[in-house]
Amino acid sequence: MTDYRPPLTDLEFVLNHVAGLPAICEFEAYPYADPEFIAGALGEAGRFAAEVIAPLNEVGDTAHSTISDGAVTTPPGFKDAYDAFVASGWPAVGFPEQYGGGGMPVLVATAVNEMVTTANMAFSLCPMLTYGTNEMLLWHGSEEQRATYLGKLVPGEWTGTMVLTEADAGSDVGALITKAVAQDDGTYRITGNKIFITWGDHDLTDNIVHIVLARTPDAPPGTKGISCFIIPKFLVNEDGSVGAPNNVETVSLEHKLGIHASPTAVLAFDDSVGWLIGEENQGMRYMFTMMNNARLQVGLQGVSVAERAYQAAVEYALERRQGRAIGAPKTEKSPIIEHPDVRRMLMLMRSQIEAGRCLVLKTAEAIDVSHHHPQEAERNRAAERLAILTPISKAWPTDMGVQVTSLGIQVLGGMGYVEESGMPQHFRDARITPIYEGTNGIQAADLVARKLPMRGGDAVREMLEEMGGVAAALAEVDDLAIIGTALGDAIGALAEASIVLGKMLMDDPNDALAGATAYQEMFGLTAGGWLLGVSALAAHERLDGDQGAFMAAKIATARFFSEHLLPQVRGLLPSATAGAAGLFAIDTENL
Amino acid sequence: MTDYRPPLTDLEFVLNHVAGLPAICEFEAYPYADPEFIAGALGEAGRFAAEVIAPLNEVGDTAHSTISDGAVTTPPGFKDAYDAFVASGWPAVGFPEQYGGGGMPVLVATAVNEMVTTANMAFSLCPMLTYGTNEMLLWHGSEEQRATYLGKLVPGEWTGTMVLTEADAGSDVGALITKAVAQDDGTYRITGNKIFITWGDHDLTDNIVHIVLARTPDAPPGTKGISCFIIPKFLVNEDGSVGAPNNVETVSLEHKLGIHASPTAVLAFDDSVGWLIGEENQGMRYMFTMMNNARLQVGLQGVSVAERAYQAAVEYALERRQGRAIGAPKTEKSPIIEHPDVRRMLMLMRSQIEAGRCLVLKTAEAIDVSHHHPQEAERNRAAERLAILTPISKAWPTDMGVQVTSLGIQVLGGMGYVEESGMPQHFRDARITPIYEGTNGIQAADLVARKLPMRGGDAVREMLEEMGGVAAALAEVDDLAIIGTALGDAIGALAEASIVLGKMLMDDPNDALAGATAYQEMFGLTAGGWLLGVSALAAHERLDGDQGAFMAAKIATARFFSEHLLPQVRGLLPSATAGAAGLFAIDTENL
Repeated sequence: MTDYRPPLTDLEFVLNHVAGLPAICEFEAYPYADPEFIAGALGEAGRFAAEVIAPLNEVGDTAHSTISDGAVTTPPGFKDAYDAFVASGWPAVGFPEQYGGGGMPVLVATAVNEMVTTANMAFSLCPMLTYGTNEMLLWHGSEEQRATYLGKLVPGEWTGTMVLTEADAGSDVGALITKAVAQDDGTYRITGNKIFITWGDHDLTDNIVHIVLARTPDAPPGTKGISCFIIPKFLVNEDGSVGAPNNVETVSLEHKLGIHASPTAVLAFDDSVGWLIGEENQGMRYMFTMMNNARLQVGLQGVSVAERAYQAAVEYALERRQGRAIGAPKTEKSPIIEHPDVRRMLMLMRSQIEAGRCLVLKTAEAIDVSHHHPQEAERNRAAERLAILTPISKAWPTDMGVQVTSLGIQVLGGMGYVEESGMPQHFRDARITPIYEGTNGIQAADLVARKLPMRGGDAVREMLEEMGGVAAALAEVDDLAIIGTALGDAIGALAEASIVLGKMLMDDPNDALAGATAYQEMFGLTAGGWLLGVSALAAHERLDGDQGAFMAAKIATARFFSEHLLPQVRGLLPSATAGAAGLFAIDTENL
Repeated sequence: MTDYRPPLTDLEFVLNHVAGLPAICEFEAYPYADPEFIAGALGEAGRFAAEVIAPLNEVGDTAHSTISDGAVTTPPGFKDAYDAFVASGWPAVGFPEQYGGGGMPVLVATAVNEMVTTANMAFSLCPMLTYGTNEMLLWHGSEEQRATYLGKLVPGEWTGTMVLTEADAGSDVGALITKAVAQDDGTYRITGNKIFITWGDHDLTDNIVHIVLARTPDAPPGTKGISCFIIPKFLVNEDGSVGAPNNVETVSLEHKLGIHASPTAVLAFDDSVGWLIGEENQGMRYMFTMMNNARLQVGLQGVSVAERAYQAAVEYALERRQGRAIGAPKTEKSPIIEHPDVRRMLMLMRSQIEAGRCLVLKTAEAIDVSHHHPQEAERNRAAERLAILTPISKAWPTDMGVQVTSLGIQVLGGMGYVEESGMPQHFRDARITPIYEGTNGIQAADLVARKLPMRGGDAVREMLEEMGGVAAALAEVDDLAIIGTALGDAIGALAEASIVLGKMLMDDPNDALAGATAYQEMFGLTAGGWLLGVSALAAHERLDGDQGAFMAAKIATARFFSEHLLPQVRGLLPSATAGAAGLFAIDTENL
């Protein structure tokens, strides 16, 4: 397992030159946000992630979180690291001061989260879920609920969970059957079994606040009858202290391919006391408001785990000597980084990670702008952009994370297949990310069936026009023209697919859904090329500065992406537009 | 873990209509080979694989092979299954009768091997390595060596290994330093440490025959100074019985991502007695003669592990109900197999597996024809074809196996990430296949630097012409014309890449090597499309027979491949032809 080096220079570059941090710092909602202060804070967060959290990544993979007599034990060192994490204030960065938060933009919290996640993805899931709980209570909880819980949750003294899935209700959330019965005192009694609850139980904090989806006896069927409840593991006394157990039993933990340190719990609620959030039957609506950020944070995990694998692969490729590269001195073996195919793999990793980072932070920008821009028209425009970007920034980086961690193994060769090299863990950890928080197939359906038709297709069309403007700007700079050409061609193919799928959606939605994943891949690649194009333009203006080598590398990375990855967009066009007939041509009994 | 259903119908179809089994059965070398007899034998082999070997796949993954006090213990049930395997005669299918073999073509042995491998990849590695040992002794061993070992090895009473890798000699085999010193009695004493020795030690048989690469004191440097030795774990007495230990110490076993039941050993040879195979310093040449089949069998593993994942994914998708497919009755949840994106994943899996099976068996055909065709010109042509097909049929199916087992996880969603579902094992097992027996990057370099220039490019050109003939034939059949068009376009892109890379090879080999992997991907996809095109033509002629539904499915699968996968060939062309400059544009210290 190699050390983790926080990519601070790139994070700052993307925040400031791609994701519009300076403008966000001007928003009234963020009085203390200032690019220079933030740069310093990121440095500190990176140091903490590298020194305190990263060393536990392998420990967590080996030891797993375990359960014995219904009690969960986290891997050695996790409790101390979590305490230090809370003491440092990092969990609270993106929340309002009144609850002990740092009052920083979501954009900045996301950059901090990248480093925590890269250091230790399994660890990072605990604050990530708490983050979701906080948002739920901030936006939809009563004043009393916020007062009771947020002062503990925001700083991380307690943690939160999202309790949705049941054995027969996974992607089909509306099928859930957990029962909630109203009591005379205004509380509810909740009974049901839930599965796949991330950090559903642990020994890091005194209490855990579950956000639970359940159904009242007279609720309508499907997603329209879901209500949302707060169920603390331990009841909270009047004085805010931790009280009696609340009948939440941890039945078991899953044996998973990866993220072993993250306890994935089966929880049984048996007449547990719950408090309704907002109104009955509005649970799905509340969940949807949090979903953008939750999906974005999972997309970020794809970038993070890929980054960790990339750093380890570069380190190995610099040290390992095998064979002689063409042109190297006859008497010595070359570091494998000098072999073209190894360099190709590293550039594939690097360029996609940088594209993914841009995509994630650009989406985080849209969250901040949609909430806090002074002009309503800009807020609405950002909300629309966010709606389009969310499925893409969830799906593309997570598919990419699986591929890039696989390349990481390949760079190390046989050693990469040995667990002690650390590479298998990244590959195993990465594999959950295309699944949870809505599978990437669900994201693709959302993109095509809900987002593409927004404003009769104009929302997507305007986004493609903005991309086209970048391609045009690139075309006017000699060194970047080749990027502009490739980007322009990709946008053209994506525009064509958008028109075809938009029409299919009206004629036969199955045809559009059949092409949804290929369309999403096209969109992700093109968006990545767009934002690397923006990066290249910004870097080109700064080639003469004191970060000249970094800026030149940004351009080289963008060019590599445009030569090796953007051309695949057009290659996906036939698949995106082929329709459903070919998928269903073989009867199920002959499959 | 689901049951394994041997794909006998498809195997027979591919053997007879794609891979030319009937013609091979006419060769004098295979007097007992007969398509009908072979069909029966495959049925028996499939039954054995499914009933005896497949049930141990999960056991092996969980229990691992373990080492204690230098002794290796295989997982529970492996010894009994291996004994039954030997008793059944399946290990010997492809070897001459005089050593207890079945006298069948390599093509048939490969079909048997597919089923054994799909049943249990970790198990299958043991006979696979023995197979290589047998070939080495058959082709390069002395009569005495053959007499001593083959009677035991061919039936599987003893097993064999290939002992090449050292800590500083992996892809760079020529860097090995294990020493071999000639003795007055004609034997050698060998000393050195070897790593990554598959089934390097175990408890299945009384003896293990190591084929070891080492270097005599006066050997020239690099691959030109490598000699090849037989080193039995236990010396063999005059009467053929197992004698004294031969100083081969099993130091440790690797902790690997997958194939846990396969003991990957570190072996220490300390003055071990070895017998030279053939002549000194000819070891690499001997290894090369076996390499085609060894690489092919690894390619086969990609197909096999993908097939197992596919079968499990179909079974799950038929049973699991979530959501309602468009057009389904309002009152019920649909099996997820009715959702377009799930069906798309299953078709992606299926079509690539069938393409991979064709590719592997077509390559096996080339082995048989190159050895045994009555006409020398045909033997030479097949040898040339084999040279081209070998890297492709190693690399493409193994990269595919990783992707398809990943899709298998995705089809199951959250359940696919849980180890008990069996899916993670396939994904973990698959990941070694792009690495061992020459990484896929090494294969690509071999394809571009050695195979593409054969006969000034004519060898590849003639192969593309043959593919073009299939595209033309498809174009003339109404229902298949769409396949022909896609295939023709892929062949065009591949031809263009062949010309560009051929030229680069002369101008600056690094430019050609930079595009080697993309070129290999193009070739693999196109070759897959070609052979599925051949399949579609054969199936089209048989639509009215009693296997009509199967034949229609073959055509549907070929069409899916041509719509969704072949268009990616042209998308890879820019990457294949971009040259090396972009790969090396960033200095190593800035990566």
